[in-house]
Amino acid sequence: MADERLSRVKGAVRGFPDFPKPGILFRDIFPILRDPSLLKDLCSLMLDHIRSKTSEVDVIVGLEARGFLFGPILAMELGCSFVPIRKAGKLPGKTEKVEYILEYGKDVFEIQEGSILKGQKVVIVDDLLATGGTMKAACELVKKVGGDIKDCLVVIELSDLKGRDKVPEGCSSLINY
Amino acid sequence: MADERLSRVKGAVRGFPDFPKPGILFRDIFPILRDPSLLKDLCSLMLDHIRSKTSEVDVIVGLEARGFLFGPILAMELGCSFVPIRKAGKLPGKTEKVEYILEYGKDVFEIQEGSILKGQKVVIVDDLLATGGTMKAACELVKKVGGDIKDCLVVIELSDLKGRDKVPEGCSSLINY
Repeated sequence: MADERLSRVKGAVRGFPDFPKPGILFRDIFPILRDPSLLKDLCSLMLDHIRSKTSEVDVIVGLEARGFLFGPILAMELGCSFVPIRKAGKLPGKTEKVEYILEYGKDVFEIQEGSILKGQKVVIVDDLLATGGTMKAACELVKKVGGDIKDCLVVIELSDLKGRDKVPEGCSSLINY
Repeated sequence: MADERLSRVKGAVRGFPDFPKPGILFRDIFPILRDPSLLKDLCSLMLDHIRSKTSEVDVIVGLEARGFLFGPILAMELGCSFVPIRKAGKLPGKTEKVEYILEYGKDVFEIQEGSILKGQKVVIVDDLLATGGTMKAACELVKKVGGDIKDCLVVIELSDLKGRDKVPEGCSSLINY
Protein backbone atom coordinates (compact mmCIF):
# COMPACT_ATOMS: atom_id res chain seq x y z
CA MET A 1 0.00 0.00 0.00
CA ALA A 2 1.42 3.37 -0.98
CA ASP A 3 2.13 5.71 1.89
CA GLU A 4 -0.55 8.43 1.90
CA ARG A 5 1.95 11.00 3.13
CA LEU A 6 4.09 10.26 0.07
CA SER A 7 1.14 10.63 -2.32
CA ARG A 8 0.29 14.00 -0.82
CA VAL A 9 3.89 15.24 -0.99
CA LYS A 10 4.38 13.99 -4.55
CA GLY A 11 1.14 15.64 -5.60
CA ALA A 12 2.49 19.02 -4.53
CA VAL A 13 5.73 18.90 -6.55
CA ARG A 14 5.34 21.07 -9.64
CA GLY A 15 7.12 20.60 -12.97
CA PHE A 16 8.38 23.59 -14.97
CA PRO A 17 9.46 22.73 -18.53
CA ASP A 18 12.54 24.43 -19.96
CA PHE A 19 13.85 25.81 -16.66
CA PRO A 20 16.57 26.84 -16.01
CA LYS A 21 17.21 26.15 -19.71
CA PRO A 22 15.57 24.48 -22.74
CA GLY A 23 15.12 20.73 -22.40
CA ILE A 24 15.20 20.66 -18.60
CA LEU A 25 12.02 19.83 -16.68
CA PHE A 26 12.54 21.55 -13.32
CA ARG A 27 10.90 19.89 -10.29
CA ASP A 28 9.90 22.53 -7.77
CA ILE A 29 9.60 21.45 -4.13
CA PHE A 30 8.60 24.85 -2.74
CA PRO A 31 4.84 24.16 -3.02
CA ILE A 32 5.41 21.52 -0.31
CA LEU A 33 6.76 24.21 2.01
CA ARG A 34 3.75 26.45 1.41
CA ASP A 35 1.54 23.92 3.23
CA PRO A 36 2.68 23.13 6.80
CA SER A 37 0.86 19.77 6.80
CA LEU A 38 2.77 18.72 3.66
CA LEU A 39 6.06 19.87 5.17
CA LYS A 40 5.25 17.76 8.23
CA ASP A 41 4.45 14.78 5.97
CA LEU A 42 7.74 15.22 4.14
CA CYS A 43 9.83 15.53 7.29
CA SER A 44 8.17 12.50 8.91
CA LEU A 45 8.86 10.47 5.76
CA MET A 46 12.51 11.53 5.81
CA LEU A 47 12.79 10.74 9.53
CA ASP A 48 11.19 7.30 9.09
CA HIS A 49 13.62 6.61 6.30
CA ILE A 50 16.70 7.72 8.24
CA ARG A 51 15.65 5.65 11.27
CA SER A 52 15.19 2.60 9.04
CA LYS A 53 18.71 2.97 7.65
CA THR A 54 20.66 3.57 10.83
CA SER A 55 19.96 3.27 14.52
CA GLU A 56 22.10 6.27 15.33
CA VAL A 57 22.90 9.57 13.62
CA ASP A 58 25.39 12.08 14.95
CA VAL A 59 25.26 14.64 12.18
CA ILE A 60 22.82 15.71 9.46
CA VAL A 61 24.77 17.46 6.69
CA GLY A 62 22.74 19.78 4.47
CA LEU A 63 23.89 21.05 1.08
CA GLU A 64 23.47 24.73 0.26
CA ALA A 65 20.84 26.02 -0.28
CA ARG A 66 17.86 23.66 -0.44
CA GLY A 67 19.38 21.12 1.92
CA PHE A 68 19.09 23.92 4.52
CA LEU A 69 15.29 23.72 4.26
CA PHE A 70 14.96 20.25 5.82
CA GLY A 71 18.29 19.54 7.46
CA PRO A 72 17.81 21.56 10.67
CA ILE A 73 14.29 20.13 11.19
CA LEU A 74 15.61 16.57 10.85
CA ALA A 75 18.57 17.25 13.16
CA MET A 76 16.33 18.78 15.81
CA GLU A 77 13.97 15.79 15.67
CA LEU A 78 16.82 13.29 15.79
CA GLY A 79 18.60 15.22 18.55
CA CYS A 80 21.81 15.51 16.53
CA SER A 81 23.98 18.21 14.92
CA PHE A 82 23.22 20.05 11.73
CA VAL A 83 26.31 20.92 9.68
CA PRO A 84 26.29 22.84 6.36
CA ILE A 85 28.28 22.25 3.21
CA ARG A 86 28.52 25.55 1.35
CA LYS A 87 29.96 27.04 -1.81
CA ALA A 88 33.49 28.46 -1.56
CA GLY A 89 34.11 31.56 0.52
CA LYS A 90 30.98 31.51 2.65
CA LEU A 91 32.12 29.64 5.75
CA PRO A 92 34.48 31.39 8.20
CA GLY A 93 37.46 29.79 9.92
CA LYS A 94 39.45 26.82 8.75
CA THR A 95 37.67 24.69 6.17
CA GLU A 96 38.19 21.54 4.16
CA LYS A 97 37.53 21.91 0.44
CA VAL A 98 36.67 19.76 -2.54
CA GLU A 99 36.47 20.78 -6.17
CA TYR A 100 33.76 19.41 -8.42
CA ILE A 101 32.93 19.66 -12.09
CA LEU A 102 29.88 21.50 -13.36
CA GLU A 103 28.56 21.44 -16.89
CA TYR A 104 30.54 24.60 -17.60
CA GLY A 105 33.56 24.96 -15.37
CA LYS A 106 33.95 23.88 -11.78
CA ASP A 107 32.95 24.83 -8.28
CA VAL A 108 34.22 24.30 -4.75
CA PHE A 109 32.38 22.96 -1.70
CA GLU A 110 33.55 23.69 1.83
CA ILE A 111 32.90 22.35 5.31
CA GLN A 112 34.13 23.84 8.59
CA GLU A 113 36.97 22.01 10.28
CA GLY A 114 35.87 20.41 13.52
CA SER A 115 32.20 20.43 12.59
CA ILE A 116 32.28 16.63 12.17
CA LEU A 117 34.38 14.46 14.47
CA LYS A 118 36.20 11.37 13.24
CA GLY A 119 33.89 8.36 13.12
CA GLN A 120 30.66 10.31 13.60
CA LYS A 121 27.67 8.82 11.80
CA VAL A 122 26.51 11.17 9.06
CA VAL A 123 23.43 11.43 6.85
CA ILE A 124 23.69 13.92 3.96
CA VAL A 125 20.44 15.53 2.79
CA ASP A 126 19.50 17.54 -0.28
CA ASP A 127 16.33 18.20 -2.25
CA LEU A 128 17.32 16.62 -5.56
CA LEU A 129 19.66 14.05 -7.09
CA ALA A 130 20.27 14.79 -10.77
CA THR A 131 23.67 13.92 -12.30
CA GLY A 132 25.07 13.22 -8.84
CA GLY A 133 28.05 15.58 -9.09
CA THR A 134 27.26 17.63 -6.00
CA MET A 135 26.35 14.59 -3.87
CA LYS A 136 29.58 12.90 -4.90
CA ALA A 137 31.55 15.99 -3.88
CA ALA A 138 29.68 16.20 -0.58
CA CYS A 139 30.56 12.56 0.19
CA GLU A 140 34.23 13.20 -0.57
CA LEU A 141 34.23 16.16 1.76
CA VAL A 142 32.52 14.32 4.62
CA LYS A 143 34.96 11.42 4.28
CA LYS A 144 37.89 13.86 4.17
CA VAL A 145 36.97 15.11 7.66
CA GLY A 146 36.50 11.56 8.92
CA GLY A 147 32.71 11.22 8.88
CA ASP A 148 31.10 7.79 8.51
CA ILE A 149 28.39 8.20 5.85
CA LYS A 150 25.29 6.16 6.69
CA ASP A 151 23.07 7.49 3.91
CA CYS A 152 22.56 10.23 1.34
CA LEU A 153 18.89 11.15 1.31
CA VAL A 154 17.17 13.30 -1.31
CA VAL A 155 13.51 14.15 -1.76
CA ILE A 156 13.54 13.73 -5.55
CA GLU A 157 15.70 11.55 -7.80
CA LEU A 158 15.82 11.99 -11.58
CA SER A 159 16.56 8.33 -12.26
CA ASP A 160 17.40 8.69 -15.97
CA LEU A 161 20.45 10.77 -15.13
CA LYS A 162 21.93 7.84 -13.16
CA GLY A 163 23.28 10.15 -10.44
CA ARG A 164 23.29 7.32 -7.91
CA ASP A 165 26.06 5.57 -9.88
CA LYS A 166 28.36 8.38 -8.75
CA VAL A 167 27.53 7.82 -5.07
CA PRO A 168 29.02 4.49 -3.95
CA GLU A 169 28.06 5.32 -0.35
CA GLY A 170 24.46 4.66 -1.35
CA CYS A 171 21.69 7.11 -2.04
CA SER A 172 18.02 7.04 -1.03
CA SER A 173 15.15 9.04 -2.51
CA LEU A 174 11.49 9.44 -1.69
CA ILE A 175 10.20 10.36 -5.15
CA ASN A 176 11.47 9.13 -8.52
CA TYR A 177 10.93 10.63 -11.95
CA MET B 1 16.02 38.83 34.19
CA ALA B 2 17.84 37.70 31.08
CA ASP B 3 16.30 34.78 29.29
CA GLU B 4 18.46 31.71 29.86
CA ARG B 5 17.76 30.43 26.38
CA LEU B 6 19.12 33.67 24.96
CA SER B 7 22.30 33.49 27.06
CA ARG B 8 22.92 29.95 25.83
CA VAL B 9 22.32 30.87 22.18
CA LYS B 10 24.44 34.00 22.38
CA GLY B 11 27.25 32.02 24.01
CA ALA B 12 27.43 29.76 20.96
CA VAL B 13 27.82 32.51 18.33
CA ARG B 14 31.44 32.67 17.27
CA GLY B 15 33.28 35.73 15.98
CA PHE B 16 35.80 35.47 13.15
CA PRO B 17 37.91 38.63 12.63
CA ASP B 18 38.72 39.72 9.08
CA PHE B 19 36.19 37.48 7.34
CA PRO B 20 35.15 37.63 4.55
CA LYS B 21 37.60 40.55 4.29
CA PRO B 22 39.87 42.69 6.48
CA GLY B 23 38.05 44.81 9.05
CA ILE B 24 34.89 42.67 9.16
CA LEU B 25 34.12 40.64 12.30
CA PHE B 26 31.99 37.77 11.02
CA ARG B 27 29.39 36.36 13.44
CA ASP B 28 28.92 32.67 12.79
CA ILE B 29 25.58 31.14 13.80
CA PHE B 30 26.38 27.59 12.69
CA PRO B 31 27.68 26.50 16.13
CA ILE B 32 24.06 26.95 17.31
CA LEU B 33 22.92 24.40 14.74
CA ARG B 34 25.53 21.88 15.87
CA ASP B 35 23.70 21.49 19.19
CA PRO B 36 20.04 20.46 18.86
CA SER B 37 19.17 21.89 22.29
CA LEU B 38 20.53 25.31 21.24
CA LEU B 39 18.63 25.14 17.94
CA LYS B 40 15.47 24.42 19.96
CA ASP B 41 16.24 27.36 22.26
CA LEU B 42 16.74 29.64 19.27
CA CYS B 43 13.56 28.55 17.51
CA SER B 44 11.47 28.87 20.67
CA LEU B 45 12.84 32.40 21.20
CA MET B 46 11.96 33.31 17.61
CA LEU B 47 8.48 31.80 18.00
CA ASP B 48 7.84 33.64 21.28
CA HIS B 49 8.89 36.85 19.62
CA ILE B 50 6.70 36.38 16.55
CA ARG B 51 3.68 35.53 18.72
CA SER B 52 4.27 38.65 20.79
CA LYS B 53 4.29 40.83 17.66
CA THR B 54 1.26 39.46 15.84
CA SER B 55 -1.63 37.18 16.73
CA GLU B 56 -1.70 35.64 13.28
CA VAL B 57 0.92 34.81 10.64
CA ASP B 58 0.06 33.48 7.19
CA VAL B 59 3.55 33.31 5.71
CA ILE B 60 7.12 33.08 6.95
CA VAL B 61 9.45 34.41 4.25
CA GLY B 62 13.06 33.21 4.46
CA LEU B 63 15.95 34.88 2.67
CA GLU B 64 18.44 32.70 0.80
CA ALA B 65 20.43 30.94 2.16
CA ARG B 66 20.58 31.26 5.97
CA GLY B 67 16.93 32.27 6.30
CA PHE B 68 16.22 28.75 5.01
CA LEU B 69 17.74 27.30 8.19
CA PHE B 70 15.02 28.57 10.56
CA GLY B 71 12.13 29.62 8.31
CA PRO B 72 10.63 26.16 7.66
CA ILE B 73 10.85 25.21 11.36
CA LEU B 74 9.02 28.40 12.36
CA ALA B 75 6.38 27.95 9.66
CA MET B 76 5.74 24.34 10.68
CA GLU B 77 5.36 25.36 14.33
CA LEU B 78 3.07 28.28 13.49
CA GLY B 79 1.06 26.18 11.02
CA CYS B 80 1.66 28.62 8.18
CA SER B 81 3.40 28.75 4.77
CA PHE B 82 7.10 29.02 4.19
CA VAL B 83 8.04 31.04 1.10
CA PRO B 84 11.60 31.68 -0.11
CA ILE B 85 13.16 34.82 -1.52
CA ARG B 86 16.08 33.81 -3.71
CA LYS B 87 18.79 35.31 -5.88
CA ALA B 88 17.93 35.83 -9.55
CA GLY B 89 17.44 32.80 -11.79
CA LYS B 90 16.84 30.17 -9.14
CA LEU B 91 13.05 30.14 -8.85
CA PRO B 92 11.01 28.61 -11.69
CA GLY B 93 7.78 30.04 -13.12
CA LYS B 94 6.67 33.64 -13.04
CA THR B 95 8.42 35.75 -10.43
CA GLU B 96 8.41 39.28 -9.11
CA LYS B 97 11.85 40.89 -8.91
CA VAL B 98 13.58 43.69 -7.08
CA GLU B 99 17.08 45.04 -7.66
CA TYR B 100 19.28 46.03 -4.74
CA ILE B 101 22.64 47.63 -4.37
CA LEU B 102 25.64 45.76 -3.00
CA GLU B 103 28.96 47.26 -2.01
CA TYR B 104 30.26 46.45 -5.49
CA GLY B 105 27.51 46.32 -8.09
CA LYS B 106 23.96 45.09 -7.65
CA ASP B 107 21.93 41.96 -7.25
CA VAL B 108 18.35 40.82 -7.83
CA PHE B 109 15.95 39.11 -5.43
CA GLU B 110 13.00 37.06 -6.67
CA ILE B 111 9.80 35.64 -5.22
CA GLN B 112 7.38 33.29 -6.97
CA GLU B 113 4.12 34.84 -8.15
CA GLY B 114 1.16 33.52 -6.21
CA SER B 115 3.28 32.38 -3.28
CA ILE B 116 1.88 35.20 -1.13
CA LEU B 117 -1.75 36.27 -1.51
CA LYS B 118 -2.84 39.90 -1.21
CA GLY B 119 -3.28 40.91 2.42
CA GLN B 120 -1.58 37.86 3.91
CA LYS B 121 0.28 38.54 7.13
CA VAL B 122 4.02 38.04 6.61
CA VAL B 123 7.06 37.75 8.86
CA ILE B 124 10.45 37.89 7.09
CA VAL B 125 13.31 36.00 8.74
CA ASP B 126 17.07 36.03 8.21
CA ASP B 127 20.11 35.32 10.32
CA LEU B 128 21.72 38.75 10.31
CA LEU B 129 20.93 42.43 9.86
CA ALA B 130 24.03 44.37 8.78
CA THR B 131 23.62 47.39 6.50
CA GLY B 132 19.98 46.47 5.89
CA GLY B 133 20.17 46.38 2.09
CA THR B 134 18.88 42.86 1.65
CA MET B 135 16.12 43.24 4.25
CA LYS B 136 14.98 46.46 2.59
CA ALA B 137 14.86 44.67 -0.79
CA ALA B 138 12.95 41.75 0.74
CA CYS B 139 10.35 44.14 2.18
CA GLU B 140 9.91 45.83 -1.18
CA LEU B 141 9.37 42.47 -2.83
CA VAL B 142 6.84 41.26 -0.26
CA LYS B 143 4.89 44.52 -0.56
CA LYS B 144 5.01 44.28 -4.35
CA VAL B 145 3.10 40.98 -4.22
CA GLY B 146 0.62 42.42 -1.71
CA GLY B 147 1.90 40.93 1.54
CA ASP B 148 1.24 42.72 4.84
CA ILE B 149 4.57 42.75 6.70
CA LYS B 150 4.11 42.23 10.44
CA ASP B 151 7.77 41.94 11.35
CA CYS B 152 11.30 41.38 10.06
CA LEU B 153 13.09 39.11 12.49
CA VAL B 154 16.83 38.41 12.54
CA VAL B 155 18.91 36.44 14.99
CA ILE B 156 21.78 38.96 15.06
CA GLU B 157 21.82 42.71 14.50
CA LEU B 158 25.03 44.69 14.00
CA SER B 159 23.65 47.88 15.53
CA ASP B 160 26.51 50.19 14.51
CA LEU B 161 25.66 49.69 10.85
CA LYS B 162 22.17 51.17 11.43
CA GLY B 163 20.52 48.67 9.10
CA ARG B 164 17.18 49.09 10.82
CA ASP B 165 16.96 52.67 9.53
CA LYS B 166 16.50 51.19 6.05
CA VAL B 167 13.56 49.02 7.20
CA PRO B 168 10.59 51.30 7.99
CA GLU B 169 8.41 48.19 8.42
CA GLY B 170 10.26 47.57 11.67
CA CYS B 171 12.94 45.06 12.47
CA SER B 172 13.43 42.83 15.52
CA SER B 173 16.58 41.06 16.61
CA LEU B 174 17.45 38.64 19.38
CA ILE B 175 21.15 39.45 19.75
CA ASN B 176 22.84 42.83 19.31
CA TYR B 177 26.52 43.60 18.77
